[in-house]
Amino acid sequence: MNLRLVVTVSLILNLVLTIYFLYNNSTTWNPTWTSRAASEAETAASVSCSGHGRAFMDGLGVLDGYKPPCECNNCYTGKDCSILLVDCHVNANSGDPLFLEPFWMRQAESSAVLVSGWNRMSYFYQDGTFVSEELEKVIRKLHSVVGNAVTDDRFVIFGGGTTQLLAAAVHALSSSTNSSPARLLTSVPYYSMYKEQAEFFDSAHLKFEGDASEWKKSEPNDNITQVIEVVTSPNNPDGKLKGAVLDGPNVKTIHDYAYYWPYFSPITKPVDEELSLFSLSKTTGHAGSRFGWALVKDKDVFERMKTYIRLSSMGVSRDTQLHALQLLKVVVGDEGESIFHFGYQTLKKRWETLNQIMSMSTRFSFQTIEPEYCNYFKKVRDFTPSYAWVKCERLEDTNCYEVFRAAKITGREGKVFGSEERFVRLSLIRSQDEFDQLIHMLNKLVSEEALGNDSI
Amino acid sequence: MNLRLVVTVSLILNLVLTIYFLYNNSTTWNPTWTSRAASEAETAASVSCSGHGRAFMDGLGVLDGYKPPCECNNCYTGKDCSILLVDCHVNANSGDPLFLEPFWMRQAESSAVLVSGWNRMSYFYQDGTFVSEELEKVIRKLHSVVGNAVTDDRFVIFGGGTTQLLAAAVHALSSSTNSSPARLLTSVPYYSMYKEQAEFFDSAHLKFEGDASEWKKSEPNDNITQVIEVVTSPNNPDGKLKGAVLDGPNVKTIHDYAYYWPYFSPITKPVDEELSLFSLSKTTGHAGSRFGWALVKDKDVFERMKTYIRLSSMGVSRDTQLHALQLLKVVVGDEGESIFHFGYQTLKKRWETLNQIMSMSTRFSFQTIEPEYCNYFKKVRDFTPSYAWVKCERLEDTNCYEVFRAAKITGREGKVFGSEERFVRLSLIRSQDEFDQLIHMLNKLVSEEALGNDSI
Repeated sequence: MNLRLVVTVSLILNLVLTIYFLYNNSTTWNPTWTSRAASEAETAASVSCSGHGRAFMDGLGVLDGYKPPCECNNCYTGKDCSILLVDCHVNANSGDPLFLEPFWMRQAESSAVLVSGWNRMSYFYQDGTFVSEELEKVIRKLHSVVGNAVTDDRFVIFGGGTTQLLAAAVHALSSSTNSSPARLLTSVPYYSMYKEQAEFFDSAHLKFEGDASEWKKSEPNDNITQVIEVVTSPNNPDGKLKGAVLDGPNVKTIHDYAYYWPYFSPITKPVDEELSLFSLSKTTGHAGSRFGWALVKDKDVFERMKTYIRLSSMGVSRDTQLHALQLLKVVVGDEGESIFHFGYQTLKKRWETLNQIMSMSTRFSFQTIEPEYCNYFKKVRDFTPSYAWVKCERLEDTNCYEVFRAAKITGREGKVFGSEERFVRLSLIRSQDEFDQLIHMLNKLVSEEALGNDSI
Repeated sequence: MNLRLVVTVSLILNLVLTIYFLYNNSTTWNPTWTSRAASEAETAASVSCSGHGRAFMDGLGVLDGYKPPCECNNCYTGKDCSILLVDCHVNANSGDPLFLEPFWMRQAESSAVLVSGWNRMSYFYQDGTFVSEELEKVIRKLHSVVGNAVTDDRFVIFGGGTTQLLAAAVHALSSSTNSSPARLLTSVPYYSMYKEQAEFFDSAHLKFEGDASEWKKSEPNDNITQVIEVVTSPNNPDGKLKGAVLDGPNVKTIHDYAYYWPYFSPITKPVDEELSLFSLSKTTGHAGSRFGWALVKDKDVFERMKTYIRLSSMGVSRDTQLHALQLLKVVVGDEGESIFHFGYQTLKKRWETLNQIMSMSTRFSFQTIEPEYCNYFKKVRDFTPSYAWVKCERLEDTNCYEVFRAAKITGREGKVFGSEERFVRLSLIRSQDEFDQLIHMLNKLVSEEALGNDSI
């Protein structure tokens, strides 16, 4: 009887284990050559940094066989980033789009890419270009899903971020002039890269002239001098939607739409311009991947831009293109619903917090923009720009950057944007930790104001 | 008795299956979020292209859910690349370094990288730069292992291939001149990129002047005019080791050492120059990754080059840097033994085959270089350059490129290298298929010569 029980139990156990064995060997995929890389990535991802940092596979010491170390967010320290430095200096300077990092961590499975050692070693894709056709396809799809740009009858060109494409575009539009250099203009306050590039690359064919409206007033349009206007919309630093100031047969326009995504602005219409620039940095948050694209209407301009990209870097890294393809596949997979919702909600909350604090201040003001109807979210919505463009209102606060520096907040100086020193730009798209610290220090600064014991 | 046997067998089976179960759940690593990406990579890798092509994860149609298609080597066609097109036109033009692809396929496990969706989204590494410290470390290690360059007291800077670094270096060395533009010189035959960049970017501070020796003869050195000489060693197209032609207080030199690796040339000494350029393309064969580095002695030049890289692309894609780190880790893992042995043996065999055919020809000649002692292989060895620099010897064969075109071989025109049309460059570092076809067509061409029935 006892024996019979043993047999029964044993047979059942056998059956269960055999089913497990068979299932495990038939339906589960067994990784072979990819397992080392996958395991390495999971190891790095599993390093606990207390939610205040992260470990990367190429972290310091990995060559010597160490586990990737935690790289802590600003103001956090310790081996596992668990120690918060009290009243530490806040970085609100660069537009590092880490507000989207948590989204990609949640999308770990769908967004990962395994790059083989022999992935696209050639200079060329099969069609002889430097451009992945599938990536181009997914970019067109993205614009149609978001409704922010017309891509019909447009060439698509890739570059190492908007940075490289901007240089390519300016070059393409200026170098056809034979006589006097083309004038590069934009509107104050402007993204400093336009000026910096023009001055540093120092082409014989280009001269940066600053503010477009000033130029329009001072220089009667001769319809001859070649003019290039860069229009940034939404604008960096102030987040406003902008249009061109100049027109005429001698005026060419470059539209920098890096920020024209539902995170930052209502999508009021699909833009339909001659030459538009976009950046992965502000689309998916991957600033480090150095990837951007341009939509170009004119074939000659497209060809000149292609030549520029070829002669400056022979196109964009094929590894990066593969990565970008996977990320954008995730984005368009649900028509952008998850990522734009996540990003917009994040920024909306941040702006609410910021508004609450700043409403208590008379010393500081910042941009206000009337809500508009957003074709993407199908409703009237606020602007939630990447940056607060802050003005110091007190007469004596002539250098706003320094006022914030003294309060342990590093923004970006107004004069960098061609504006007055009375302005400072504060970045709101960095990590949640950095935003929280910014709020903490802003709170202090504004409270001091209420108590009347601010330093100046 | 029977029952007892059943019990025993059943218990033994229990034991075996339990051990399997436990083992499988404890020691085997169970992929979680990485498994989709890993599986996708393995699927692409498992597509059979008959050894005459390969399938990539970003191949045409993947967005629509299709399995990545085969991308066939030149002259092969069909869904699985199994059909050889008879007497098809051979591509021996670009220096696509696919001769190393089989090496990386064999190193599938060690060279793979899994990039997470949140990998290095920031503009900056933790030290605030655009440069991975571990990658810099492995590059220094690589030079010390190969013995081809001194890296002590050198800054390392990364770029989008040697292409971008060359532009950065020329800019850094030329823009300090205030008066007349700096003159850019090199030695005929030269890599055309030097000229193309200088002319296309058209800086106010630079003028391409061609051959250094000619310049030296015609222009007495005034010790004032700023001169930049680019020295390519081994030279592209002819594979010879070269030194600077010009000197003087007003002369600055850029050394392009893209080809100074044991595949192509004896390593005669560790080079120890002011400014040297290297390229991943010719180091590991990853032309598509667009990665290169410069070793720079002077801090000011380094800073100017860094500014150039920042303003043109804000550094190199962090995905690419991660990939390059993994590849170079494999290379230095056995002190370069496997890859340099593989690559050198491949090129040695190719040169033997080529020499055999060309020895039967009086119509064509190409460069010969005396063997030298190689500090890396610790023996005297032949040069095995990337390219055959072919001269058409017959008076009537004035355009050598066209002679080969007529024989269905596309090389690169001599005049592209600042040389005569009597020369053509044939690439020997492409895929084995392409080399085999090249040999096939060369054989035909040379046999016709012996039969006296060549067209001209």
